[in-house]
Amino acid sequence: MYTLVKGTHDIILKEASKYSYVEGLLQKIAESFGYKEFRTPIIENTELFARSSGESSDIVRKEMYTFMDKGDRSISLRPEGTAGVIRCMVNEKVFINQDYPVKAFYCGPNFRYERPQKGRFRQFNQFGVECCGVTSPYRDAETIILGYDSLMFLGFKNLTLKINSLGDDETRTNYCNALREYFKKYVDNMCDDCKERYKTNVLRILDCKVDEDRKIIENAPKIQDFYSDATKDSFNKIQEFLKLQNIPFEIDDTLVRGLDYYSGVVFEYHYTTKSGLNVGAIGAGGHYGKLIPELGGPNIEGVGFAIGIERVVSVLEDDNLLDNHDDPLDTYIMPIGENNFSKALEIANYLRVNGYSSDVCLENKGVGQMFKKAERRDALYALILGDDEVKNNTINLKNLTSQEQKNIKLDDLLKTLDHLFGEDDDCDDDCCKHE
Amino acid sequence: MYTLVKGTHDIILKEASKYSYVEGLLQKIAESFGYKEFRTPIIENTELFARSSGESSDIVRKEMYTFMDKGDRSISLRPEGTAGVIRCMVNEKVFINQDYPVKAFYCGPNFRYERPQKGRFRQFNQFGVECCGVTSPYRDAETIILGYDSLMFLGFKNLTLKINSLGDDETRTNYCNALREYFKKYVDNMCDDCKERYKTNVLRILDCKVDEDRKIIENAPKIQDFYSDATKDSFNKIQEFLKLQNIPFEIDDTLVRGLDYYSGVVFEYHYTTKSGLNVGAIGAGGHYGKLIPELGGPNIEGVGFAIGIERVVSVLEDDNLLDNHDDPLDTYIMPIGENNFSKALEIANYLRVNGYSSDVCLENKGVGQMFKKAERRDALYALILGDDEVKNNTINLKNLTSQEQKNIKLDDLLKTLDHLFGEDDDCDDDCCKHE
Repeated sequence: MYTLVKGTHDIILKEASKYSYVEGLLQKIAESFGYKEFRTPIIENTELFARSSGESSDIVRKEMYTFMDKGDRSISLRPEGTAGVIRCMVNEKVFINQDYPVKAFYCGPNFRYERPQKGRFRQFNQFGVECCGVTSPYRDAETIILGYDSLMFLGFKNLTLKINSLGDDETRTNYCNALREYFKKYVDNMCDDCKERYKTNVLRILDCKVDEDRKIIENAPKIQDFYSDATKDSFNKIQEFLKLQNIPFEIDDTLVRGLDYYSGVVFEYHYTTKSGLNVGAIGAGGHYGKLIPELGGPNIEGVGFAIGIERVVSVLEDDNLLDNHDDPLDTYIMPIGENNFSKALEIANYLRVNGYSSDVCLENKGVGQMFKKAERRDALYALILGDDEVKNNTINLKNLTSQEQKNIKLDDLLKTLDHLFGEDDDCDDDCCKHE
Repeated sequence: MYTLVKGTHDIILKEASKYSYVEGLLQKIAESFGYKEFRTPIIENTELFARSSGESSDIVRKEMYTFMDKGDRSISLRPEGTAGVIRCMVNEKVFINQDYPVKAFYCGPNFRYERPQKGRFRQFNQFGVECCGVTSPYRDAETIILGYDSLMFLGFKNLTLKINSLGDDETRTNYCNALREYFKKYVDNMCDDCKERYKTNVLRILDCKVDEDRKIIENAPKIQDFYSDATKDSFNKIQEFLKLQNIPFEIDDTLVRGLDYYSGVVFEYHYTTKSGLNVGAIGAGGHYGKLIPELGGPNIEGVGFAIGIERVVSVLEDDNLLDNHDDPLDTYIMPIGENNFSKALEIANYLRVNGYSSDVCLENKGVGQMFKKAERRDALYALILGDDEVKNNTINLKNLTSQEQKNIKLDDLLKTLDHLFGEDDDCDDDCCKHE
């Protein structure tokens, strides 16, 4: 038996329908906000991520799938979606040809070499949006609302939106100086990661999960005390706007996000299950001030978020919010004898183009065996086709739930199914819903 | 500027809509045949492909993206979709839990390190199906028909279906012996690849593209002369069935496909453009007798095909068969003054949940500038919202094609749009189509 690569997973059958449902809904909502799809390659030149995520980020330091291709170039599997989308916008001259803000959504697999644990995969799917060319804090607010509305629409009623501002350049310079000053006397006793962070990116210390270090972090200076006037104004406007739109939020000054490119507002959507379990962030994002020019684009800013599809599906499943995504087989056609196979397939194809899924038993089985197969396939109706039926242009239609069976003219088959499925346009009975 | 990895490409905006349309249609048709989605990882252990595609195949010898992960295991980006799906079916016990045949479809990126050329990419998308547990030649025929119907449905009217049979074990053993005997006296003067093929897999010589070699190949023994009775019977039944279903086909005895795992029927869908250009195969597949047990599954056979999405989209574009996939912005809302931003976003969100795409200008622009932005976004209707409108609960609706403008009550907005978009259920006029 050949095994999966550790940390990857198969998504099949009903589980795959759930993924498609979640992704389809997220795409549809983003499209209603004016977002358009951007598909970028899974492999990119490594330097793209080194630059965008930051050489000092955990992603680039420890978690990327990086290898040399046959032409001796360093290639990486994308660890996240934003860098590729911005790289693409620059390459494709989108910032020249499109009106601002440019609204992009993406959906697909990313890769991180992390320690596998429940709900954490090395290949995982993300849906995300990027809104680029942002000059107004209201765009930040609109983006935060898009993520919030999308998750509410999927069924997450018990959401907590956490926001923070990492401030503009002026704010960050002053704040980082204060942090370096504060941690100076503690850093020698903190964890190795923090020692490293102190040197490369002191902000990251606030992300540390080590208990001992957390006590020190609690008393560190707060970024709020260093906000520039511009940062205060923009962050206030975002909050006011969220209030006007009745979106509840909490300010969480420990929120810094794990990527170097964020500045300005950052946010996370946290969820607590029906049983009271806090599952943490199921989506997160922020405003980026420097990423677009750093990747060769114009000096404009952007805001975006990403939602983890694996996390969303698993939490929705745990809370029984994804029940009705069965896709039964509408009809199972049972030809009796090889002579009737071709006619059966013809009928199947006729039903298929008219919107009914259909399978045919082409294996020359007895009627009893075929009924068993129909049952194993979760078929709703069986259509039995013997020599007499073919001769008389009829077919036997059996409801596999009620076991009711009747012989009908082949010419009436579609009409009869439309009626049974409640899709008969000319029927005035209540049975047929007209949407 | 950061460049794409050579041989990869971005798919964005209208181009992305075309990909989604093509993939969506292929999925829908496969689902109507009773196929279910299988998503397998992009990274797999290298030995999976070495076993399934064959150590001697061009793919495994020259074209795979193979690297060592941080745990020193050899990982490859999948070069094709079949091996992963079968590996998954075995791992997930699908062959134990599901009725036969198991019908799987997949859609996503594959990777081959090939020389980049027009229409050939190193990361390319494929849609494919696998029908596993096949005991009847009619299943082969059904699968061939699914591919044919799918491509016809996409608009390819000028399709040529080429079929061949590579025969069962008995056939292949006898045929390969005959080929080795025939090529023995020529092989020293043939190309290096053929010399290699002679030793590892003599059937592959028939695939050689070198002109000198082709002359020798033309006179090689034909597989038809070595068919066992079982192969003859099965291949005849497939042909009879295709004729009964009015699917035209040609028998092409040079068709061998580039993967080791095929046996029995193989097939390709070739297309000639309106301008008479033969673009070659846009989809291909075949029956595999040994692949499932070789990957640890039961001793059952399968049949499948794959369609290249890049090829399909580019040929459909060349033949102008993909014209109507524009997705205009339904409404562009223009709040006059920051005070009206929140109300504008509220209206946008109301329209969005009711099925209309909407964007709002949140950048504090003048009316003239906002009209220019609406135009650049291909918006159909502008909604202008000033202080008076907010006070009176009205809004100005402007048709950006006819330039007609009227002031309407906010309460009537949805009804008015439904009417303008021809979706008003209560309207009896011809303008409103009820599907």
